[in-house]
Amino acid sequence: MPPQFNTRPAHLPLGERQNSRFYGQHIVSVKQFSRLDIEHIFTIAEEMRIMVERVGTFDLLKGKVLANLFYEPSTRTSSSFTAAMERLGGSVIPISEVKYSSVSKGESLPDTIRTLQSYADVIVLRHHEKGAAEIAAKYARKPVINAGDGPGEHPTQALLDLFTIREELGRIDGLTVTMLGDLKYGRTVHSLAKLLALFNVTVNYVSPDILRMPAELVDELDGRGLSQSQFSALEAVLPKTDVLYVTRVQKERFDDLALYESVKGAFVITPETLKIAKQKMIVMHPLPRVGEISMDVDDDPRAAYFRQMEYGMYVRMALLAMVLGKA
Amino acid sequence: MPPQFNTRPAHLPLGERQNSRFYGQHIVSVKQFSRLDIEHIFTIAEEMRIMVERVGTFDLLKGKVLANLFYEPSTRTSSSFTAAMERLGGSVIPISEVKYSSVSKGESLPDTIRTLQSYADVIVLRHHEKGAAEIAAKYARKPVINAGDGPGEHPTQALLDLFTIREELGRIDGLTVTMLGDLKYGRTVHSLAKLLALFNVTVNYVSPDILRMPAELVDELDGRGLSQSQFSALEAVLPKTDVLYVTRVQKERFDDLALYESVKGAFVITPETLKIAKQKMIVMHPLPRVGEISMDVDDDPRAAYFRQMEYGMYVRMALLAMVLGKA
Amino acid sequence: MPPQFNTRPAHLPLGERQNSRFYGQHIVSVKQFSRLDIEHIFTIAEEMRIMVERVGTFDLLKGKVLANLFYEPSTRTSSSFTAAMERLGGSVIPISEVKYSSVSKGESLPDTIRTLQSYADVIVLRHHEKGAAEIAAKYARKPVINAGDGPGEHPTQALLDLFTIREELGRIDGLTVTMLGDLKYGRTVHSLAKLLALFNVTVNYVSPDILRMPAELVDELDGRGLSQSQFSALEAVLPKTDVLYVTRVQKERFDDLALYESVKGAFVITPETLKIAKQKMIVMHPLPRVGEISMDVDDDPRAAYFRQMEYGMYVRMALLAMVLGKA
Repeated sequence: MPPQFNTRPAHLPLGERQNSRFYGQHIVSVKQFSRLDIEHIFTIAEEMRIMVERVGTFDLLKGKVLANLFYEPSTRTSSSFTAAMERLGGSVIPISEVKYSSVSKGESLPDTIRTLQSYADVIVLRHHEKGAAEIAAKYARKPVINAGDGPGEHPTQALLDLFTIREELGRIDGLTVTMLGDLKYGRTVHSLAKLLALFNVTVNYVSPDILRMPAELVDELDGRGLSQSQFSALEAVLPKTDVLYVTRVQKERFDDLALYESVKGAFVITPETLKIAKQKMIVMHPLPRVGEISMDVDDDPRAAYFRQMEYGMYVRMALLAMVLGKA
Repeated sequence: MPPQFNTRPAHLPLGERQNSRFYGQHIVSVKQFSRLDIEHIFTIAEEMRIMVERVGTFDLLKGKVLANLFYEPSTRTSSSFTAAMERLGGSVIPISEVKYSSVSKGESLPDTIRTLQSYADVIVLRHHEKGAAEIAAKYARKPVINAGDGPGEHPTQALLDLFTIREELGRIDGLTVTMLGDLKYGRTVHSLAKLLALFNVTVNYVSPDILRMPAELVDELDGRGLSQSQFSALEAVLPKTDVLYVTRVQKERFDDLALYESVKGAFVITPETLKIAKQKMIVMHPLPRVGEISMDVDDDPRAAYFRQMEYGMYVRMALLAMVLGKA
Repeated sequence: MPPQFNTRPAHLPLGERQNSRFYGQHIVSVKQFSRLDIEHIFTIAEEMRIMVERVGTFDLLKGKVLANLFYEPSTRTSSSFTAAMERLGGSVIPISEVKYSSVSKGESLPDTIRTLQSYADVIVLRHHEKGAAEIAAKYARKPVINAGDGPGEHPTQALLDLFTIREELGRIDGLTVTMLGDLKYGRTVHSLAKLLALFNVTVNYVSPDILRMPAELVDELDGRGLSQSQFSALEAVLPKTDVLYVTRVQKERFDDLALYESVKGAFVITPETLKIAKQKMIVMHPLPRVGEISMDVDDDPRAAYFRQMEYGMYVRMALLAMVLGKA
C-alpha cells in the first residue's frame, strides 16, 4: 500500500473536507458569493430539506458546538440557527442576555469572540452595529456567520429569500421579481437585489416616492446588468410578476402623516389585490409583518412567507455544514 | 408475504404510531381528558419514571425539536419541559426573551407560532393572556402544549398534581382531598378539582370566607357528581384527609388587613399542624411557597411537594412522547 | 463464577464509579482541595483536552442533565459550563432569566435548588450573595458546583488559573508568580493565592498602596508556608517572573482621582512592558479586560489569557465528570 500523506492541521478532527467550498470561512456579506457558490449552497440546502423531511435530525455535525451570540434579540433568526444546528446533531450555546452581562460591560467584541471560540466551533453573530461581523471575522480563527449587523448586512436572509424562489418556482433565471414597500431603508431588499443581479431576472420596484430604492444601488446593479424598473403602483406590474416581495412601510418614515395615510393602502396585500396576479406566482415577506399582508391571504397557496421561514432553516443548515467542512 | 399498506402522510418519519391517543393533538385544557385518557397518560408517565431512574435519558424523541416559547418567565415550568425533552433525547429551542424581541413587537401570536413550527416538531406555550393556547392551537399544524395561559388553564400542572396523588398513595378513588388557602383565584385548584371529578373522591375546601371556591365551579362539579364540602378551619377535616393541597393566601387579596392578620396563621402548615393528620397522607403545594408551609415540615415523609416537581417531569415526558406519536 | 455483590444505591445508573474522588460531592470552595486532589483534577482535565482536540465531543455524560442556574449574568462562565457539558454529550437546562422569574420572587434558594434537582443531575450555581453556594449545597442531594457567589468564592476560576500555569509552563513548583493590579478586592487572586500555597512557589504582589493584598490573607498564607513579597512597581520583579497575573484597577476604588491617574499607567501591560520579561513566561488575566493589557500584546506568544479560557472548559469538564462519577 502506498504511504498516506496527511495534510490535516494538527488536532483537526478526521472527516472534515478541507477542500470543500467555504470550509473554515466566514459568512459576512452577500458580496462574497458567486453564482456558482449560490448554486452549490442551494444544492446542499435541498439535501438538508430532504433529510429533515425524512428523518427530522441527523448527526452530520455531532461533536460540533455553535455559539449563538445575539447582542440584540431576534427570536426568529436565533431560533432558526438553533434549530439548524440541533437538526444536524450539533449543540448550541445560547447567548442572548448579552446586554445585561459583564461581557458587554466594556468588553470589546474581539475579546468576546476570542473567548467564545475557545468553547465553540462556529459563531453566529447578531449585532446592532454595522461592520460588527467583519470585525469579529478579523479576530476569529473559527468561522463567524453574520446574522445581521444593524443597518449592514444579513446575508443568510438574502440567501434564504433566493432559495425560497428557487424551491417554489423551480428556477430563478427568467423570472420577474417585484419588490414592494419601503425600498429605501430595507436591508432585506437591498441584499436580495444584489444576489438577483447574479441571475437573469427582471426586477420591478414599487414604493412611495420617498421610500425608493437608493439611486446608488440602482446604478450599481445597473452596471452589473440587472434589468430594473421603478413604479409607484402595483397594478401595472402585478399581472407579470412571478415573485412579489413585500416589506413593511413604517409610519415613522413619513414626516407628512397625510401622505402616509394616502399611500399606505396601496401597499397592503389582500385577496382582492391578488386577483390580477398569476395563478403560479408567490408572495414573500421577511416577517414579522404588521398589516402589510392581510391574514386572509395566508390560505392562498401563493402565500409563501411561512414556507420561507422553513427554507431559511435549510439554508442555515447548509452554511453551518459547509463552514465546518462537513457538507 | 402479503402486501404492506402504508397510510403514513408524506414525509412523516417512520416509527410514529399515528393511531396512538393524542398523536398530533394539542394539549390545551383539562376538559379534553376522559378518565381513560388520564389513566393512559399516567401509565406512560410511570414508564418514563422507571426509565429515568434506570438510565437517566433515552432516545425516544431523538430527532425531535421542541420550541419552548415563554411569553412570561416561569423557571419551574420551563425547566421541567426542557428536562423532559432532553431526557427523551430530543432538542430544545429556548425562547424566553420574547418580551424584548421583535417577535413580540406587534407580531401576532399566530404568525409567531407559524414561524416556530417551521423549525420545531412541537411547541410548548406559556402566555400571560387567557385563551392564548387555544388561538395558537388553531393556527398550528404541529402540536401545541399549553404551559399556562394567564388566568386560564395550566393542564400539565393539574395532571402532575393528580399523578403525584396516584404515585404517592397508589390510587385516586376513595381518597379524601382537602384544598387549603386561596381557592377563589387559584388556577391550580380549579383545574385539579375538575380532574378529580372524574374519580370517586371526597373534596374538602378550607379557605377564608372571601377566598372560597367560586360558586359556579362548585355547582358545575356538583352536577358532575363530585362530593364537595366547605370549611373555614382545617382541624375539622385534617384527621380524615389523605391529600392536603396547600396554596398561598396572598395579602393583596384582602382589603381589610386586620382580617388578613387574623386568618393567615390558620393557613400555615407546621409540624404542629400535622400532628392530627394521618400517618399515611401527603402534603402538596404547586410551589413556589412563601411561608404557607414551614420549612420544618420538609423532612416529614408526608411532605410530597418536592417529589411533586419530579412527577411533573414524568407527566410532561409522557405528553411530549404521546403528541409526537412515540409513546 | 462467584456471586456478584452490588453496592450501588437503588436506581443509581450503572457505570458510575462511586469510589472515585469527588463523586456526588459539591464543589464550593478552594479550601476543599488538597494538592493530591488538584493533581487528580488536572490529570483528568488534560485527558479532556486531548479528547476535545481529537474528537470535539464525546458521550461520557450522555444521559446526564446540568441545571445552569445563574442569578446574575456571566456570559463567560455560563458559556464555559454549557460547552463543557455539551462536549461531554450531556444536556443543559439554561436558567438565566432568574431575576425576572417567579422563582426569584420570594422563593428561597433551598426551594429552587430542591426543585431543580428533580429535573437535573448536577447544578451549577452563580449567585450575587456570599455563602449562597454553601446554602445550596446543604439542601441539595445532587452535586452543586459554585460558579461564583458574589464576593465569596469562584473555585473553578482558581482551578483553571492554576491549570493554565501547569499546561503552559509544564509545572507549578519552583515558579515565580507575580500578581498585579487590584489585589484588595480581587476574588480571583485571593483564591489563586490559596491554591498556590499548596505548591512550592514564590509569589510577588504588585499593587497601588490602597489596593494591597489583605493583611489577614497574607498572614494566613504565610502560616501555610507561602513565600510572599509586596512591591509597588512591576519593573523590580518582572525579569524573574514566570507568571504575570494581571487584574483590573478600577477607577471607582479611588477616592482621590489624581492618585488614580498617577498610578494607572503603571498597571497597564504593553509590548514595551514585556521587553524586560523572560522569553518563556506567560501573561494571564481572568477577563474581561478593560485596558489593563494593550491589544498589541495579544499576538505575543506569552499572552496566555485567551488560552486560559479554553483551559477553563477542560477543568469544568473534569469537575462535571468527577462529581457525576464518570471520570
